[in-house]
Amino acid sequence: MSYYTKPLKKLIDQLVKLPGVGPKTAQRLAFHILEKPREDSRQLAQAILDARDKIRFCQRCFNFSSGSLCDICQDANRQTDKICIVEDAKDIVVIEKTGLYHGLYHVLGGVLSPIDGIGPKQLKVAQLINRIKQENVKEVIVATNPTLEGEQTAMYIAEALKSYQLKVTRIASGMPVGGDLEYADELTVSKALEGRQVI
Amino acid sequence: MSYYTKPLKKLIDQLVKLPGVGPKTAQRLAFHILEKPREDSRQLAQAILDARDKIRFCQRCFNFSSGSLCDICQDANRQTDKICIVEDAKDIVVIEKTGLYHGLYHVLGGVLSPIDGIGPKQLKVAQLINRIKQENVKEVIVATNPTLEGEQTAMYIAEALKSYQLKVTRIASGMPVGGDLEYADELTVSKALEGRQVI
Repeated sequence: MSYYTKPLKKLIDQLVKLPGVGPKTAQRLAFHILEKPREDSRQLAQAILDARDKIRFCQRCFNFSSGSLCDICQDANRQTDKICIVEDAKDIVVIEKTGLYHGLYHVLGGVLSPIDGIGPKQLKVAQLINRIKQENVKEVIVATNPTLEGEQTAMYIAEALKSYQLKVTRIASGMPVGGDLEYADELTVSKALEGRQVI
Repeated sequence: MSYYTKPLKKLIDQLVKLPGVGPKTAQRLAFHILEKPREDSRQLAQAILDARDKIRFCQRCFNFSSGSLCDICQDANRQTDKICIVEDAKDIVVIEKTGLYHGLYHVLGGVLSPIDGIGPKQLKVAQLINRIKQENVKEVIVATNPTLEGEQTAMYIAEALKSYQLKVTRIASGMPVGGDLEYADELTVSKALEGRQVI
């Protein structure tokens, strides 16, 4: 037997599908929705529908976009000779927040993972190479995550772009700012040592 | 400047209004919604609208309900001579899950809190007294939370029901099951001592 009246049960069942939302959180969210004005829930539902309906992928870089090109690709102030390669559109936000990068992006849509059946064809690699051929790119910064798959994907891309006249760089691995050597893993410390720079 | 395309920004702004959802979580939820099939987001939005539209308060006990009486009030198998008073409709679920209680409920809609301007008139106290007058109630179990306001509300209700022929009881306070005396606060231990029972 369910302890909830049917529409409430249905709402909880839907909320529980969201990432990081367990039954308790789903219940709390559902009760919150019931307690707030009807207009709030209407706006939330509309925002969900609008986001899903209006947002598609940028035809050029595969970032989320409301038009055929995303805001970054449309921005005339961006440096068009740099492409930063990321696994996911979410990663663009992280890099944008640094305020240090003014080039373009290319979203791979994942990393190479033979075990999961994800090869270059499942990623936007061909589209990247097309861009390299058509656009005047001087540097490709590979910003896939510093995981095993991320590193392998970076190596693969470097290899795939070898025949083109451009610089391929990889974001640095090392100690996170505010980190403590005592608690850092050996791989991170190794990377920090290897990547040491003159000060 | 926002890092998100407009419909995405709007969705994040709506999600961030939910309890326990900060900007990071809202972003994660929004990206999840974008990545999942359109049908999923439609179902989620619909569940939100349906819950808000179809659920109202039970006319008798003020539990959430899809009809004029809630599932519990409509259930012929419940003991109608017991009313358990709770602050919130959420608390009903907690008590139902114990499987120990088979009576009815009455949702106060909060606790007395003079500082916040919440007196008996802001709660469903008059409606409770009406029920006591009309229904054949033998026991009222006050299950407001064991907080200062919850205790004061319990005292107030006990006082208000004094002139009626019924037993007014309060749920026990004491050590939570699995708890450790070493880490329990003095008030809880005091309550556990006061409420000790012969074994």
